[in-house]
Amino acid sequence: MKQPDLLSSAQLAHSLQLLHQHASLVHCMTNDVVQTFTANVLLALRASPAMVIDADEAAQFSGYADALLINVGTLTRDRSIAMQAAVEAANRAGTPWTLDPVAVGALTFRTEFCQQLLTQQPAAIRGNASEILALANQAAGGRGVDSLHQADAALSAAQQLAHDYRSIVAVTGEVDYVTDGQHTFAIPGGSPLMTRVVGTGCALSAVVAAFASLPGERLQHVAAACRVMSLAGERAARQVQGPGSFVAAFLDALWTLEVTP
Amino acid sequence: MKQPDLLSSAQLAHSLQLLHQHASLVHCMTNDVVQTFTANVLLALRASPAMVIDADEAAQFSGYADALLINVGTLTRDRSIAMQAAVEAANRAGTPWTLDPVAVGALTFRTEFCQQLLTQQPAAIRGNASEILALANQAAGGRGVDSLHQADAALSAAQQLAHDYRSIVAVTGEVDYVTDGQHTFAIPGGSPLMTRVVGTGCALSAVVAAFASLPGERLQHVAAACRVMSLAGERAARQVQGPGSFVAAFLDALWTLEVTP
Amino acid sequence: MKQPDLLSSAQLAHSLQLLHQHASLVHCMTNDVVQTFTANVLLALRASPAMVIDADEAAQFSGYADALLINVGTLTRDRSIAMQAAVEAANRAGTPWTLDPVAVGALTFRTEFCQQLLTQQPAAIRGNASEILALANQAAGGRGVDSLHQADAALSAAQQLAHDYRSIVAVTGEVDYVTDGQHTFAIPGGSPLMTRVVGTGCALSAVVAAFASLPGERLQHVAAACRVMSLAGERAARQVQGPGSFVAAFLDALWTLEVTP
Repeated sequence: MKQPDLLSSAQLAHSLQLLHQHASLVHCMTNDVVQTFTANVLLALRASPAMVIDADEAAQFSGYADALLINVGTLTRDRSIAMQAAVEAANRAGTPWTLDPVAVGALTFRTEFCQQLLTQQPAAIRGNASEILALANQAAGGRGVDSLHQADAALSAAQQLAHDYRSIVAVTGEVDYVTDGQHTFAIPGGSPLMTRVVGTGCALSAVVAAFASLPGERLQHVAAACRVMSLAGERAARQVQGPGSFVAAFLDALWTLEVTP
Repeated sequence: MKQPDLLSSAQLAHSLQLLHQHASLVHCMTNDVVQTFTANVLLALRASPAMVIDADEAAQFSGYADALLINVGTLTRDRSIAMQAAVEAANRAGTPWTLDPVAVGALTFRTEFCQQLLTQQPAAIRGNASEILALANQAAGGRGVDSLHQADAALSAAQQLAHDYRSIVAVTGEVDYVTDGQHTFAIPGGSPLMTRVVGTGCALSAVVAAFASLPGERLQHVAAACRVMSLAGERAARQVQGPGSFVAAFLDALWTLEVTP
Repeated sequence: MKQPDLLSSAQLAHSLQLLHQHASLVHCMTNDVVQTFTANVLLALRASPAMVIDADEAAQFSGYADALLINVGTLTRDRSIAMQAAVEAANRAGTPWTLDPVAVGALTFRTEFCQQLLTQQPAAIRGNASEILALANQAAGGRGVDSLHQADAALSAAQQLAHDYRSIVAVTGEVDYVTDGQHTFAIPGGSPLMTRVVGTGCALSAVVAAFASLPGERLQHVAAACRVMSLAGERAARQVQGPGSFVAAFLDALWTLEVTP
């Protein structure tokens, strides 16, 4: 397997500029804890979030939206039915959808549900190392929502998953890896404070969903999604005293992000 | 039709003073994304928010509360049943209730539900131009939650709605219009940053619900609700770098708002 | 009954140090309004929050977690079933669980549900004076979520509850009291701004749940939980202009909290 590539500034600038132009409408079916932050992250990036959760409405809305996010953090039976309906409608309409398999491996119901979703052509998958290992059936999963593994331990699992399901897989940690099974980007950066604010990973998945809907090279766009978030995290962390002030500084950094090609 | 009026400082000061005195208890049945922000906006204005969502409890609570808000942003079948029960209980108890028809027109289930609610005497209705046009059956609705129309394009639809259902209608955008079908206030101000933070419109609807419960001129009170929010938005926008820092500055501006008559 | 004790700096430092070491995994089944803030409060204290709400998954997860929080703020029938399953699983696994009886007394369904939960060995109970009086059947409860009583009016009810159910009861207000029925700590401090930000009480209950899971003196640990929050509240209030900027300053204060023994 080749060495991972680094994303150039020109590639990053190109993807970000496309996102600003398209102002993608992202249908987020995500967990209860991160809804506000997810919406604010998308808005700061000039994308447009919408949360629609009733099964009939979700199926209807997946036809209008540019992208769909499925995050199983606070899964219930009702939501799994609505998510399944939305995924089917998205696939019929050609709307690319992204899976965030929160805490997969640790909990039975969501593990079975995500394994079933995997076979339905996700455009992208974003998880931490424990989740990606569990999704690839290579480990029993984390202890709840936090990863017990480093991202590089899950790199080959990510490559296998991407290859088997013809998807883009982003496995995130201190270094993020984004792969289509053939080519891999390594994305350094970010800040440890990002792990002390709830929802940075879940919001990244929504950003991945938005970037995955852009025209052109999806692998590069998803790598740009990861870099946009880690770059804003670095910049915010330099200005703040703790995780409380980090949230505002992070959203402001996303808002003012300009990347010189 | 007459020209819209402007709200005087004396009218604004009077309504705000009444709200501070009454510390209205607002029963919010609102969407998943904006609950925290809605509660914090009401608290900053010295009102008291309470979210109660079980059908039996919601009906019981609508009897105690000073005001009820119905926002259909993340409607489900269960919630529609609980909302219907709360509206009926509110009407029995004489509790004024306010409707926020989020994304009506674009999605079938909520459109039918809101059309049915319309006939149950809402004290006030707050929406963007696309939502008000759709509610008045004059357009097919927006693309999701954002308006495709300017508020002035929906002014006559708002006046018609207010007249037909004997309600106060607030249609908000760059300029807000508040009408009872006969008289109309035009409320300028606000900041474009308010559209880059999730929930400013939904929180305004909760503030409309609170002001609509005050004794005296309801039309003027609802206009004051819109002006309180746009004024805080202007003040906050002057101090911040982006949408992240805007949220805190906006709540602080609501908290320190004093209007000289 | 003896005079309440004050918590020493050494006791506070000891409990906080233990929490940092254990990084307790807290399973939060809490209300819709306070999820993000609750998670961020726990993260700022180096604990690890996880929200799992499906009945089967919640029961499974209560076995892994160090602590369980049950908060009935936005109770529904479905959630009550999942909460009951989680409590039973927690008791089987020996996971200590904490009850926050939000608005008990005012609303029938949650009052009956909390009375039933009371008999299932909560390690700790945290409420305002109206809620504790209602739980002890000594009053009809508050008007919604805010207390109509001062904490000292509920002290004897708290002591009775703690004695009858062999639990630790924290009744919070301007002064907090924490009691096991025999010994009582009085915790002064905090800031009135804490009542103008949604979720400070609910987040305290999550912090109580985390501290109640530490080895050693549970009564002292729960008193430390209350003091950690009131101390951060005092420090934050000194730096801010209003409730908006308070939130970030409060989380930063929790993050940087070091107590010299």
